[in-house]
Amino acid sequence: MALVVQKYGGTSVGSIERIQNVARRVAKAYDEGNDIVVVLSAMSGETNKLVALANEICEFPSEREYDVLVSTGEQVTIALLSMCLQSMGYKAKSYTAAQIPIRTDSAHTRARISSIDDQRVREDLRNGTIIVVPGFQGVDPEGNLTTLGRGGSDTSAVAVAAALKADVCEIFTDVDGVYTTDPRIVPEASKIEKISYDEMLEMASLGAKVLQIRSVEFAKKYGVVIHVRSSFNDNPGTLVMKEDPEMEAVLVAGVTYNKDEAKISVMRVPDKPGIAAQLFTSLSQSNVTVDMIIQNVSHDGFTDMTFTVPHGDYKKAMKIVEGTATGIGASEVKGDEHIAKVSIVGVGMRSHSGVASQMFACLAQEGINVHMISTSEIKISCIIDSKYTELAVRVLHESFGLSGEDVQQETL
Amino acid sequence: MALVVQKYGGTSVGSIERIQNVARRVAKAYDEGNDIVVVLSAMSGETNKLVALANEICEFPSEREYDVLVSTGEQVTIALLSMCLQSMGYKAKSYTAAQIPIRTDSAHTRARISSIDDQRVREDLRNGTIIVVPGFQGVDPEGNLTTLGRGGSDTSAVAVAAALKADVCEIFTDVDGVYTTDPRIVPEASKIEKISYDEMLEMASLGAKVLQIRSVEFAKKYGVVIHVRSSFNDNPGTLVMKEDPEMEAVLVAGVTYNKDEAKISVMRVPDKPGIAAQLFTSLSQSNVTVDMIIQNVSHDGFTDMTFTVPHGDYKKAMKIVEGTATGIGASEVKGDEHIAKVSIVGVGMRSHSGVASQMFACLAQEGINVHMISTSEIKISCIIDSKYTELAVRVLHESFGLSGEDVQQETL
Repeated sequence: MALVVQKYGGTSVGSIERIQNVARRVAKAYDEGNDIVVVLSAMSGETNKLVALANEICEFPSEREYDVLVSTGEQVTIALLSMCLQSMGYKAKSYTAAQIPIRTDSAHTRARISSIDDQRVREDLRNGTIIVVPGFQGVDPEGNLTTLGRGGSDTSAVAVAAALKADVCEIFTDVDGVYTTDPRIVPEASKIEKISYDEMLEMASLGAKVLQIRSVEFAKKYGVVIHVRSSFNDNPGTLVMKEDPEMEAVLVAGVTYNKDEAKISVMRVPDKPGIAAQLFTSLSQSNVTVDMIIQNVSHDGFTDMTFTVPHGDYKKAMKIVEGTATGIGASEVKGDEHIAKVSIVGVGMRSHSGVASQMFACLAQEGINVHMISTSEIKISCIIDSKYTELAVRVLHESFGLSGEDVQQETL
Repeated sequence: MALVVQKYGGTSVGSIERIQNVARRVAKAYDEGNDIVVVLSAMSGETNKLVALANEICEFPSEREYDVLVSTGEQVTIALLSMCLQSMGYKAKSYTAAQIPIRTDSAHTRARISSIDDQRVREDLRNGTIIVVPGFQGVDPEGNLTTLGRGGSDTSAVAVAAALKADVCEIFTDVDGVYTTDPRIVPEASKIEKISYDEMLEMASLGAKVLQIRSVEFAKKYGVVIHVRSSFNDNPGTLVMKEDPEMEAVLVAGVTYNKDEAKISVMRVPDKPGIAAQLFTSLSQSNVTVDMIIQNVSHDGFTDMTFTVPHGDYKKAMKIVEGTATGIGASEVKGDEHIAKVSIVGVGMRSHSGVASQMFACLAQEGINVHMISTSEIKISCIIDSKYTELAVRVLHESFGLSGEDVQQETL
């Protein structure tokens, strides 16, 4: 008998029929002898509808009231699922975030969970009750309702699992698990059976959108095993968990890409202390998030500095940088919107050499030029021309053996 | 400077534009120097939509979860109005029933308010904040969400006004106030300026649907002055308040009618102890509410017993009564669905004689036969054939001088 936290997203509870499906799935897990806590999102589209109401009534809705408004979405689904389970003959009970309580800080619309009281839930579980709680929301120290920001339901689920020391946190979604790369680009992409927290974090921040990054950070911190799986079938999905020797045997776990970046180069910057600070302070003050930053060794007291920004911030960033460049004595600012970042991720890299050179050789063979390179212990990212994105992803996926035996496993 | 509780119903907050209208009205009252607490219903139609979801997901939704579900309706409107007021430059803040808290018993879907904590609200009012709270809902001693039943928002408003010792509780609705009778039947019906709690209770229970009965009971118990008025204009409405000499000077305050009843007669019942109990116990066990009961003096140890039930329960009640009648030795059961109750209400009756005879004479003059009569200190009700309802209401309204000078006042 295990304690299982199951989280269902908005698509999985998007209609009465789908909620009834979720109820059957929950009931099955309960009948198999598990204690079950369910974490739900709002019905798909519902949060958007509420946000639209807020934006219709005024231009800049109060964040405190925004949270009061949008947190009704999950309150609807937890009530409906509990009703449904009860009508099927199960003991079931919903709790709002305030009732548990799920405590957060006071940062409305982007709050962070600080603690979860497990007392009421544990008592109910002991007498065989299935507990249904809302994702995405909490209550601050003054009792104000808060929300965690978009996608926060994954984080709620992991936090609940951590508080209850659950055996597993199952995140049900509309895909079968985490794939070695985007199956829309590489049809041979295969489902990853197990992936470490660090790899998942790199995958997520590099563009694989299956899990919210914060939920993975939370899971890593508290050692919660996440099982990402489909709410539409019974296939096993992907386990996100502590690194194990099996994972290290795999050189590269996945290939990711991100087309949503643009590159800015500041040429012939005087290579003296404080210059970089000046440049990036002006950007951060305007809320532009800088991703990769490359500065090479200098020649004659001058250097070139290149960095990437989100595509949506490109024009704003160019304007800011052009303004600053003159002041710091740079010769020129160059921009390029047509770039993409292609990355390989794997804990196996740590203990293997030659991974980077294999990546570069593989790209060179296809005539793909690499503009920038950035590495971490378990990741190598290359900036290339965006037109080569799909080609690069395909050849890297092939080159690192990801289109191999797993594919067969997948089709079983 | 006064403390004013304003309650707006579902129609008044039925769209974004209407909520913005409410905000302007609230702001105006605030600008006039008042402390304001607003009590809101859900957007019209919203509660029905939520109830439909519950009924779609299962046949008999859990009442606890039903309350979790439907209480989201008001949470949406309190957030939207608070946002709107803030965007207009006012300090405003919503509180859910659990946050205040508005405490109730644990009778889900029909809970009764037990107490309201005024501390947080008072602090906020002191610093000039407009408070927005949901009607219709509360929280029980264990922290479960509860609802007060349909129309409970009026009761919430009066309870909040009582807890805060507000100067007035303004109930905004889609009519101008309480009328001497239904203006659809008598175009000369006039708005009543002031009415006592007892008169309003009789009027409400006899079919005038402006205020929920429970809210009037609550107001009477705590001496809350209710001002029923329109949310679509600035006309003064009707004050529901303690009896004063002015009210006693008026013989009849209003004429009401109710077509939603049916009459059942049990003929030649043996007149001995326990018979009535047997008859009405079987009805109440089947949740049939009996309204008027008439039993006349007996002849030869037998009597006839007549009573009215809601029209919707007529068939069920007939079946039950027919079953019981044989057992108690009655000779026959007669039913009549085509009846109506016409009543006159007024505290002035207490100190005036001849009101009843005037009523009967007035009906007789039009050839309207009276089947049953029931009286209280401030009310006389007659059961008549339903086809005469409108005629009876018109002649009574005329006869008791209600179509007189107030009409001119109304058209000003």
